[in-house]
Amino acid sequence: MTNISIITIGDELLIGQVIDSNSAWMAQELNKAGIRVNRRVAVGDVRDDIKKALDEESVHSDAILITGGLGPTADDITKPLLCDYFGGKLILNDAALKNVTYLFEEVFERPLTPRNIRQAEVPDVCTVIQNKNGTAPGMLFEKNGKVFISMPGVPLEMKGMMLNDVIPFLTKKFPTAHIIHRTLLTFGIGESMIADMIQPFEEALPAYIKLAYLPNYGMVRLRLSANLDKTDQTEQAVDELFLQLQQLMKDYIVTNQDDPIEKVLAQLLEENGKTMSTAESCTGGYIAHLITAMPGSSAYFNGSVVSYSNEAKENLLNVDKATLLAHGAVSEPVVLQMVKAAVEKLHTDYAVAVSGIMGPDGGSPEKPTGTVWVAVGNQTQRVAKKFHFRFDRQRNIQLTAINALNLLRKFVQSDLQKETTLPLSQTNS
Amino acid sequence: MTNISIITIGDELLIGQVIDSNSAWMAQELNKAGIRVNRRVAVGDVRDDIKKALDEESVHSDAILITGGLGPTADDITKPLLCDYFGGKLILNDAALKNVTYLFEEVFERPLTPRNIRQAEVPDVCTVIQNKNGTAPGMLFEKNGKVFISMPGVPLEMKGMMLNDVIPFLTKKFPTAHIIHRTLLTFGIGESMIADMIQPFEEALPAYIKLAYLPNYGMVRLRLSANLDKTDQTEQAVDELFLQLQQLMKDYIVTNQDDPIEKVLAQLLEENGKTMSTAESCTGGYIAHLITAMPGSSAYFNGSVVSYSNEAKENLLNVDKATLLAHGAVSEPVVLQMVKAAVEKLHTDYAVAVSGIMGPDGGSPEKPTGTVWVAVGNQTQRVAKKFHFRFDRQRNIQLTAINALNLLRKFVQSDLQKETTLPLSQTNS
Repeated sequence: MTNISIITIGDELLIGQVIDSNSAWMAQELNKAGIRVNRRVAVGDVRDDIKKALDEESVHSDAILITGGLGPTADDITKPLLCDYFGGKLILNDAALKNVTYLFEEVFERPLTPRNIRQAEVPDVCTVIQNKNGTAPGMLFEKNGKVFISMPGVPLEMKGMMLNDVIPFLTKKFPTAHIIHRTLLTFGIGESMIADMIQPFEEALPAYIKLAYLPNYGMVRLRLSANLDKTDQTEQAVDELFLQLQQLMKDYIVTNQDDPIEKVLAQLLEENGKTMSTAESCTGGYIAHLITAMPGSSAYFNGSVVSYSNEAKENLLNVDKATLLAHGAVSEPVVLQMVKAAVEKLHTDYAVAVSGIMGPDGGSPEKPTGTVWVAVGNQTQRVAKKFHFRFDRQRNIQLTAINALNLLRKFVQSDLQKETTLPLSQTNS
Repeated sequence: MTNISIITIGDELLIGQVIDSNSAWMAQELNKAGIRVNRRVAVGDVRDDIKKALDEESVHSDAILITGGLGPTADDITKPLLCDYFGGKLILNDAALKNVTYLFEEVFERPLTPRNIRQAEVPDVCTVIQNKNGTAPGMLFEKNGKVFISMPGVPLEMKGMMLNDVIPFLTKKFPTAHIIHRTLLTFGIGESMIADMIQPFEEALPAYIKLAYLPNYGMVRLRLSANLDKTDQTEQAVDELFLQLQQLMKDYIVTNQDDPIEKVLAQLLEENGKTMSTAESCTGGYIAHLITAMPGSSAYFNGSVVSYSNEAKENLLNVDKATLLAHGAVSEPVVLQMVKAAVEKLHTDYAVAVSGIMGPDGGSPEKPTGTVWVAVGNQTQRVAKKFHFRFDRQRNIQLTAINALNLLRKFVQSDLQKETTLPLSQTNS
């Protein structure tokens, strides 16, 4: 089994100024190629800390992937440090210089300075990995049978090198396993209740298959993972167990793919040629953002009215002033009017509307922070549901969006079933 | 100098299914309390890997903070492992049981199962940290002068324990430094150009002050960091150098706080009693989301029209059909009409409008993917600007939002200056 360590370099990771999203992407791509990441380590821009991490991770792993610290400024110390660590000296690399020159002269249209030229210098003891998306080249070192690969921390640049060079190199050099993951998404049930429900299934799992529970925002993802390294361990066996798990969870399952809820809804709409819109108060456009972050969303998403003020609810969504005064903005009649207006004004088959109090301010004894009304509907039918979340603003916005998307998903599913069963009932009558 | 390691436990971190945002928050809070994080390590749900990480990090650091693996399901192995590692046995903790019972009976309104009761078990060799936000208690162990603290991975639960118990404990037990960071945000200049511009300043910095460059989405944050552990190292000295740096960067500076661009705009609006709205096509509500994610945004944000389809642009923003046909949705006249409509229909002092092609599909030779028009304006004046971004969908949406917010910030600033200078000119005339 090949083992990989990822070392991320940068003070910003240790003072909490930046969240590391590179490592998750790298791990996903490595898994697809049959390579397991066994450790991730973050250290600051401190020479001794970086050297110690290189020493230690080469004991734990076969290959060490390093990101960060390759920029053109004085706080970027990875390149000279690696040069020193592997006993080389810096030399100008022709291909890297050509790339830097091209980027500055043709793309950035800025003069090339000595500082930029130094970006094309590399240790003479490494194999250079050219950077198609930026100025800093990657570097590959080998020492005592271990591989060390240094890449920039800029996501686009790192991703290009990983896909074009690093993963092909690793899969050629090291044995790969057949790693498979099967994930399903549940809604409306907690992890301890699931665990009780599927205990006999879990206890009967063969040792090479692991079951993981990933609770997140009221949903729980269940994941079966297996490293298929013996002949009696087959993808088919895992798939059969995954089917059993789906059967056990059938009342709560949203999807048997590792997809977020917005993607499940999007597929449902797209496959059936339907459209949607949103009318958002408390989520402030977040639901529309989740939908439009997906490529191709214009096929099923027409738009949204973010009616943050009461005036906007009246002017853009025709919410009745009297209703607002009588019931308040966070109320069943208001979200029902909002969802009706969204369907009509944005000319969509379906819509979802939300109004709530996300905190920290705005709560009252009658409607405390976390009170949310959600409505979903089409041209003829509308339903509303009240929620009460108990968290901070960020988490309340997330939970509202996810529950609103799930409510719309269920409404669309049930509506489409009616459509398809209608001809049958007509025949029967 | 006290050193801290953070160990995060969970397969989901090593297969890339989850991004670790806990560690960044923990590091920020520890820094505020004068404690430095020197290493962050992520390992899977593998007994040997966790034990090795505990061994190693206790060599590197004075205290080891552990998150994850405390849930009620079989894949949560941290508690029995720590019990074993520190030579204890599991006993039921009365206060933790009381908490679990309260949560299930009063809050979740679900029956308490044996599995839930086991959540209240703790090793008899630890100090228990009660969990005010969930069922799993935290655990504090001491061994050979080193401290090990295990917390749940659920952010809200971890945060409660950190603030109420862990940080007060650490600052009492270990010496703290006076760690300060000063960050400014620049727009419109690359990091290598900045480095050339401020090279004499950077080279003259005393050794105890570090300068870091954090490039992100076309902006560069510059951060001065210092550990003030000698008497001649003062906060005042750092602030004077920070003032010099601000002077050097004055043509590019957005803020001298570690704030995102949306917060800079929000403060500008709120301090001057002004309001804004957005009309978004390609960003699909993301700009509105960035604004409304901030507490109190209803004071200056009225709402948004997300006009994803052309029909929505016509119906909700009165964009002229003829203009759409003649110039296309991604054009100067369309965003100018959109911004005008947003100001009028949402009754705000200012608005921003965007229309562009985010990719991967939708580009053409004339308007390739990444082409974006942004307009900002008030009731009487409107300006538009064309951008061309060269990245993937996610990054293009981010860049569009950030550049739109910056353009609006500059427009508002210049407009407010006009307002304040008006009485003066009148006096002069």
